[in-house]
Amino acid sequence: MFRTNNCGELRSRNTGEKVTLAGWVKRSRNLGGMTFIDLRDRYGVTQIAFNMEVNAELCEKARKTGREFVIQVSGEVMERSSKNKDLPTGDIEIKAESLEILSASETPPFTIENDTDGGEELRMKYRYLDLRRDPLQRSLALRHKLALETRKFLDEQGFLEIETPYLIKSTPEGARDFVVPSRMHENQFYALPQSPQIFKQLLMVSGYDKYFQIVRCFRDEDLRADRQPEFTQIDCEMSFVEREDVLQTFEKLARHLLSSTIEVELPEFKRMPYAEAMEKYGSDKPDLRFNMPIHDLTSEMKGADFKVFDNAPYIAGINASGCAGYSRKDLDKLTDFVKRPQIGAKGMVWVKYNEDGSIKSAIDKFYGQDDLRERLAKTNAQPGDLVLILSGDKKPMQKALGELRLEMGNRLNLRKPDDFAPLWVVDFPMFERDDETGQLHAMHHPFTSPVAGHESLLRSEPEKALANAYDMVINGVEIGGGSIRIHDRDTQKTVFEALNFTDDEAQKQFGFLMDAFKYGAPPHGGIAFGFDRLAALTAGKDSIRDFIAFPKNNAGRDLMIDSPATIAHEQWNELRLKPIDDEK
Amino acid sequence: MFRTNNCGELRSRNTGEKVTLAGWVKRSRNLGGMTFIDLRDRYGVTQIAFNMEVNAELCEKARKTGREFVIQVSGEVMERSSKNKDLPTGDIEIKAESLEILSASETPPFTIENDTDGGEELRMKYRYLDLRRDPLQRSLALRHKLALETRKFLDEQGFLEIETPYLIKSTPEGARDFVVPSRMHENQFYALPQSPQIFKQLLMVSGYDKYFQIVRCFRDEDLRADRQPEFTQIDCEMSFVEREDVLQTFEKLARHLLSSTIEVELPEFKRMPYAEAMEKYGSDKPDLRFNMPIHDLTSEMKGADFKVFDNAPYIAGINASGCAGYSRKDLDKLTDFVKRPQIGAKGMVWVKYNEDGSIKSAIDKFYGQDDLRERLAKTNAQPGDLVLILSGDKKPMQKALGELRLEMGNRLNLRKPDDFAPLWVVDFPMFERDDETGQLHAMHHPFTSPVAGHESLLRSEPEKALANAYDMVINGVEIGGGSIRIHDRDTQKTVFEALNFTDDEAQKQFGFLMDAFKYGAPPHGGIAFGFDRLAALTAGKDSIRDFIAFPKNNAGRDLMIDSPATIAHEQWNELRLKPIDDEK
Repeated sequence: MFRTNNCGELRSRNTGEKVTLAGWVKRSRNLGGMTFIDLRDRYGVTQIAFNMEVNAELCEKARKTGREFVIQVSGEVMERSSKNKDLPTGDIEIKAESLEILSASETPPFTIENDTDGGEELRMKYRYLDLRRDPLQRSLALRHKLALETRKFLDEQGFLEIETPYLIKSTPEGARDFVVPSRMHENQFYALPQSPQIFKQLLMVSGYDKYFQIVRCFRDEDLRADRQPEFTQIDCEMSFVEREDVLQTFEKLARHLLSSTIEVELPEFKRMPYAEAMEKYGSDKPDLRFNMPIHDLTSEMKGADFKVFDNAPYIAGINASGCAGYSRKDLDKLTDFVKRPQIGAKGMVWVKYNEDGSIKSAIDKFYGQDDLRERLAKTNAQPGDLVLILSGDKKPMQKALGELRLEMGNRLNLRKPDDFAPLWVVDFPMFERDDETGQLHAMHHPFTSPVAGHESLLRSEPEKALANAYDMVINGVEIGGGSIRIHDRDTQKTVFEALNFTDDEAQKQFGFLMDAFKYGAPPHGGIAFGFDRLAALTAGKDSIRDFIAFPKNNAGRDLMIDSPATIAHEQWNELRLKPIDDEK
Repeated sequence: MFRTNNCGELRSRNTGEKVTLAGWVKRSRNLGGMTFIDLRDRYGVTQIAFNMEVNAELCEKARKTGREFVIQVSGEVMERSSKNKDLPTGDIEIKAESLEILSASETPPFTIENDTDGGEELRMKYRYLDLRRDPLQRSLALRHKLALETRKFLDEQGFLEIETPYLIKSTPEGARDFVVPSRMHENQFYALPQSPQIFKQLLMVSGYDKYFQIVRCFRDEDLRADRQPEFTQIDCEMSFVEREDVLQTFEKLARHLLSSTIEVELPEFKRMPYAEAMEKYGSDKPDLRFNMPIHDLTSEMKGADFKVFDNAPYIAGINASGCAGYSRKDLDKLTDFVKRPQIGAKGMVWVKYNEDGSIKSAIDKFYGQDDLRERLAKTNAQPGDLVLILSGDKKPMQKALGELRLEMGNRLNLRKPDDFAPLWVVDFPMFERDDETGQLHAMHHPFTSPVAGHESLLRSEPEKALANAYDMVINGVEIGGGSIRIHDRDTQKTVFEALNFTDDEAQKQFGFLMDAFKYGAPPHGGIAFGFDRLAALTAGKDSIRDFIAFPKNNAGRDLMIDSPATIAHEQWNELRLKPIDDEK
């Protein structure tokens, strides 16, 4: 027993008790006659007092313990003369009677403070030190609580957590798999799952009725910022359900998680068809903490001899309320923003509704003030407002306006981390066509069923078929997505055909699922939540990295353990593999 | 909404209610005027009644639904005239008013009954059908409950569940790693973790104080019966603890798990040094549901001109109480048992204590009856008992006697599945020497600390050094094992040296851990439980396979999804790999 108490729990009521604490030296102050050490552990910070007059030797010892030393201290709990109201233990201190150094510390490569001086790379390399910082400890504690509350809630709803295998089989559909060479079966590979999709569907066929799992998933993608090759899902599936049953169940889960962890009561979940989300917000995951919808101005703006508009298949704008005062420089910055390759607009037209009632715009020479006011009536712009207009092909310009809308939301501080605006986006298309190859791809995945009545469209007009799929979106973040699944062979075959799978490929890759449907498959559906992102959202943060104990960098490397790495020659041999350009 | 109720919840009190149920046809009986369907789901079975006189068409439809069809039935809850006391819903039945076939079923390849007619291989291939059987549904529900109760208990004790990465780095120490080729870093590999050992130690260095995780682990071993290439651990670690703190904490966990799932109150945990376990039970995981200890008879049995014993370094026996009546055939079978290669004895000497007070043995010509009685006094054999003696080298004969003891325990029905005899085996050696290579290996792992006072033995007499390690053993099964860890660089270096690691290797593989110890590492220790085995033990079963939803066979194959499998040519190319004997 190294301690009687932790560093976060002693209060005035403990005054007079003899205690032993252990922890890290957060800070020590030598005030001549007295030396104070702030002792830190996961639970808090307690002040330890050493008195030169009482025990000079002990005080000298205390002075030699540097930052991050691990020490054990015994002494008496004393009421402090000057209390620290910022610290839960701030009413007391420990009058030290003994001190043992359990582990010395060199000077850490960066300061272990809320705002550290360490750069990203250094902190990743010394992740075990970064993880000592309070914000990260809070992140991981929140993540723990979210996982536990998820499990308690789903258990109470009758769900069983069932583990599915990590060593499965590679399927070319979707993103790229990580594969694992088999030593026992030469030239054969396992694959790490991108999700337990098929296994959870098989569990429904097996009659488990309500399944969930908090499970790691793997995707060998070219990493973008804030993507991880391994990530965690809350994966769920239910039998004998329709869409409404799933939405109701998981709305309750989301409510429970936010109320039990951060005491937030979520407002009503809106429902929005995918088409509406794209039209109004240029995104399939609109941030509804603010409105600022996109207004289609295609017919309104044409016929004023402004070639750019006259030639554009789509013209639309947003009303940035209260931004009429934007300077030329501000507007240039916004123009630069929309012209960035990832936004992809060719330019931007701005229209200022000045406070004096006049209108000033970049297209004054084509439109008179009254004309413009009338054409832009839809935007409901008032004096003081700024209308921003993009034109071009419809889909990319919708997305660009969606991005511009978010940018204005940021500038206007309309995206508050402690506001929560949840919705379900529904009625996604079944398929999207790859512009380059002309191939259809499943928008969710090939196991998604069409909405009732759209079955026949799968063959005749697949692009018009809507999927019985849904995404949970909160604050512009897709928190989860799912669908009612196909549970009969014929529909599944039709979808595989639309996706250009040969019978042979379908059989080889998903034969066991098709076979399973032969033996009595219940109607079923489910959802999967991105758990890393859910944790970040709950904490009001953008980056998931602080919610993963040991994340990888954007190149998929773990800088701390230095992985991936070379393996031994015997390992290559045992796996019967060699590098492609090995000439031996 | 496909149902108003599940198939396990309706009772007499529901009589008169209009309900809709959905599930699988377990059985249907055509009694002429009436047809009955037993409708099954995860929650139970409910009888559905179709009356030819009331609705002939519906009744005909019911007669066409075969086993494992998925149907939806609406009707009224009726009190049954002849109640079925074996069924929780046996007081009622549903008077069917409508029937919809949601999914037809072909005849399953084996019967979905508690005792199925399906062979192992067939059931693995159609695992989704095997999983419909009641024993498997109960196994997975128990596993779910064990996991949830583990989490609730550890959360209440202040533990945080923290996820550690699955894509880590290969280390040659210990069993063989599964590796994952990196596409982005040519000729480099991740490895799948054999356990999160180092990460949990780093979390202690990071100050998380109490960590746990229910986590998948991977070992690429040549599979033996009931070994899986992927398995699940309850992995735990605590800071500022001594051995006693860990044992107390996890004894409580084990008690909680058994009482909350199967309402068993575990008796007191014994403590037994490794050396005693080997001496008395020939095993480091003794089954203490029965005693039958091994008695060392080496000095007692020598000096009677029986060459086999006179030349043996070790002679010892067990007293199989009440077995004096064993026939020649019984004894031959036991002799065959101990001579099996995996047991490894050359022969067996038996001594019968007949009920009439006489003694009959295989070595009558060397020992007189009274002489033998005296020499075997230790065994405390009484009339009616049978003493079984093996001789040879000490270690292998201890193990052989341990196996013989278990065999006799089985024969005498002393190993009851609903008895529980828990103990901690402690004071393991730090190292064991490989007989072939002469190399020392870590008995637990290289991060295990020596017991206090044995530090200096690490260099001088490493084989005598005892480890501060402990195994939780219940009913002859090692449920968990752990240790107090090394938390300083010097001791860690000494252990690496004893294990013949060069400084370079130690630095390359574990440099980040050694580095972490530079910055203030708390004393810490922990334990990991084999979760698959814990679930099997709790259910009183020997095989773990029924407690894993989708297990692999003994060749590491998943027969259902047919994995491992070949991958596409582009996947080889993207990974920049080729087969070792590829001549292109």
